[in-house]
Amino acid sequence: MDLKSARSLIAEAAAGFYRRGWVLGTSGNFSAVLEREPMRVCITSSGKHKGELSADDFLLVDERGSVLEGDGKPSAETQIHLALYEEIGNCGAVFHTHSVWGNLLSDRCSGEGAIVIEGQEMLKGLAGVKTHEHREEVPVIENSQDYDALSGQIREIVSARSDIHGIYLRRHGLYTWGDTIEDARRHIEIFESLFEVTARAR
Amino acid sequence: MDLKSARSLIAEAAAGFYRRGWVLGTSGNFSAVLEREPMRVCITSSGKHKGELSADDFLLVDERGSVLEGDGKPSAETQIHLALYEEIGNCGAVFHTHSVWGNLLSDRCSGEGAIVIEGQEMLKGLAGVKTHEHREEVPVIENSQDYDALSGQIREIVSARSDIHGIYLRRHGLYTWGDTIEDARRHIEIFESLFEVTARAR
Amino acid sequence: MDLKSARSLIAEAAAGFYRRGWVLGTSGNFSAVLEREPMRVCITSSGKHKGELSADDFLLVDERGSVLEGDGKPSAETQIHLALYEEIGNCGAVFHTHSVWGNLLSDRCSGEGAIVIEGQEMLKGLAGVKTHEHREEVPVIENSQDYDALSGQIREIVSARSDIHGIYLRRHGLYTWGDTIEDARRHIEIFESLFEVTARAR
Amino acid sequence: MDLKSARSLIAEAAAGFYRRGWVLGTSGNFSAVLEREPMRVCITSSGKHKGELSADDFLLVDERGSVLEGDGKPSAETQIHLALYEEIGNCGAVFHTHSVWGNLLSDRCSGEGAIVIEGQEMLKGLAGVKTHEHREEVPVIENSQDYDALSGQIREIVSARSDIHGIYLRRHGLYTWGDTIEDARRHIEIFESLFEVTARAR
Repeated sequence: MDLKSARSLIAEAAAGFYRRGWVLGTSGNFSAVLEREPMRVCITSSGKHKGELSADDFLLVDERGSVLEGDGKPSAETQIHLALYEEIGNCGAVFHTHSVWGNLLSDRCSGEGAIVIEGQEMLKGLAGVKTHEHREEVPVIENSQDYDALSGQIREIVSARSDIHGIYLRRHGLYTWGDTIEDARRHIEIFESLFEVTARAR
Repeated sequence: MDLKSARSLIAEAAAGFYRRGWVLGTSGNFSAVLEREPMRVCITSSGKHKGELSADDFLLVDERGSVLEGDGKPSAETQIHLALYEEIGNCGAVFHTHSVWGNLLSDRCSGEGAIVIEGQEMLKGLAGVKTHEHREEVPVIENSQDYDALSGQIREIVSARSDIHGIYLRRHGLYTWGDTIEDARRHIEIFESLFEVTARAR
Repeated sequence: MDLKSARSLIAEAAAGFYRRGWVLGTSGNFSAVLEREPMRVCITSSGKHKGELSADDFLLVDERGSVLEGDGKPSAETQIHLALYEEIGNCGAVFHTHSVWGNLLSDRCSGEGAIVIEGQEMLKGLAGVKTHEHREEVPVIENSQDYDALSGQIREIVSARSDIHGIYLRRHGLYTWGDTIEDARRHIEIFESLFEVTARAR
Repeated sequence: MDLKSARSLIAEAAAGFYRRGWVLGTSGNFSAVLEREPMRVCITSSGKHKGELSADDFLLVDERGSVLEGDGKPSAETQIHLALYEEIGNCGAVFHTHSVWGNLLSDRCSGEGAIVIEGQEMLKGLAGVKTHEHREEVPVIENSQDYDALSGQIREIVSARSDIHGIYLRRHGLYTWGDTIEDARRHIEIFESLFEVTARAR
């Protein structure tokens, strides 16, 4: 994938999330892998409004998060994106949103350690899920400003559990990913929709 | 109706449903009859994003669901559409959405076997209903990945009950239909609006 | 006001209401007075989609509701509009929407005979209200398909109560009005917003 | 900042708030400082629809609220804006919205004197907040039509509490501010999103 296409697909997805209220107040961040060897990742810079991302709102970074192209400031969460790319072999895009329903559920479910969604047809929108008779667990971890620790925790979880499609930072937001930008976008929509169903059903 | 008009009317309706959050994550599917003898149906292909359907996102199929035109993959639910066209004489369009409120209601009402809506003016938006003093039942059936069985069940229901305008697959979504694409679209809007009223009123 | 301006202002307002989900499924109707002597009213025809009203979706009617211009079918509710114009001297526009929150409130408040809203700053958006220390009553009447009876009831209410800005038909929708199309539009927005606050506060 | 840019940035932000239902029915008002010595403030005039603000919908006022440019009527709330500019040294923009969730919370929290938000990542969207381990208090004061008294109360609060980012007038709306129009816009989005989370979590 080239940089220009990645920026344009991410900007379109992010604008949709903004309209739905999932990335208000410059929250959220989005990235995609352009190449794996050497690792080249296109990622939104810190503090940008997600309703109308332009070319200037993206950075090109390497596997350590060093900026190769772009003038913006990298977000501290860049290392979470890089950790996910390193741990998940075919991961091509990482999307992170802050929605109301996910936030509420992450708080209610933090005691159990995961948001659990079962028996819903829309689970089939998650890569590899073939039936609604599926139990999806979204691990909930405590939020932290120590991004080294957070990235470490996320690495451990995804290396131990190849069955999951997302992780929730409590009272913060959802990380999900996919082989392509299209997959990551679909995963955001599936999770946010099912978070609302799950939270309202309680 | 010609293929081009059908695609354009369906795409416009689907984009509206997407904006309202009723077909997130490539969920939902939509079809219209172009001819009845021989049966020619225009239907969305599987896994397409419903916010911006283009000509390539549609298939032309016959009465068995064999693809006559188009490159996409037919959805397994195509046979539910075809079953509805076969059982309901004047049915010209079948629309299927996945909304939060309908999903919640289908779960709460599955014990009673139907979502019941009564005494609402907006029921008059359903074809043939002339007064708010009407009791509309939307049968709720268990979701399944066995589409032969599902289609059979749906055939039985619609052949026995000519008074209904829709069927709900539990924790999955709504099937509704109409003589025209415009009617099916209106039925989706009427049902989704009344599902929200009904669920919130409980 | 000329016909063309009235159509365009109504269409713009209606499109906004449609986006918010207040006139789904071709519900709602809207009118404005062009002249009072003789009475000339521009009104939406029956069964039109409110998201994109075009010139063809309007009728010009006289004080009895006879169609002077336009090909559509007049809605049975036209006589409610005409009754309001006759009873309220300076009434220049009548707007009617079907929202979820108003619907729910009309049901919960029907025993008391009115939806009551008090102590809200946004009440100042209703014509003539100068302070939030105001008690607004929206009479709730039973819905009916007998439009003669309904119009009669509405005439009685508005002739007895010059302090009100709207009437709710239970489980049906809101009628509000104003000196101008702009006022009627603002009244819809004020009421719908305060209905949501009032219903959620319970 | 020049007048033209201020108008255009405010109009864009206000249109977004209108779409989200935070400034329905011509509610809300927005301003920005163009110069501090002498004080020159660009502010929306009274009673304008916030969905499509045009150049004519703004006024240029001095430190006493006297209109230097523009034909509209200044809102009575102009003096609240001017009080905030006077008390908060680097304040460049003041934004005021009327949302459903904030309204509900202001009522529920008025006994405690403030809406309290804690432990949320999105708090980092407020200027100067570096961690989610933050307690944000939004003082709630009684609404009033006596704008001298209100402005006086607001002056006292902001001069005593440099840690706050907003004040809520009970059952009325939020005042927030920022060094720039962009900051004030972000603060509105952060608060409105967290008000919804907080109200739904109760």
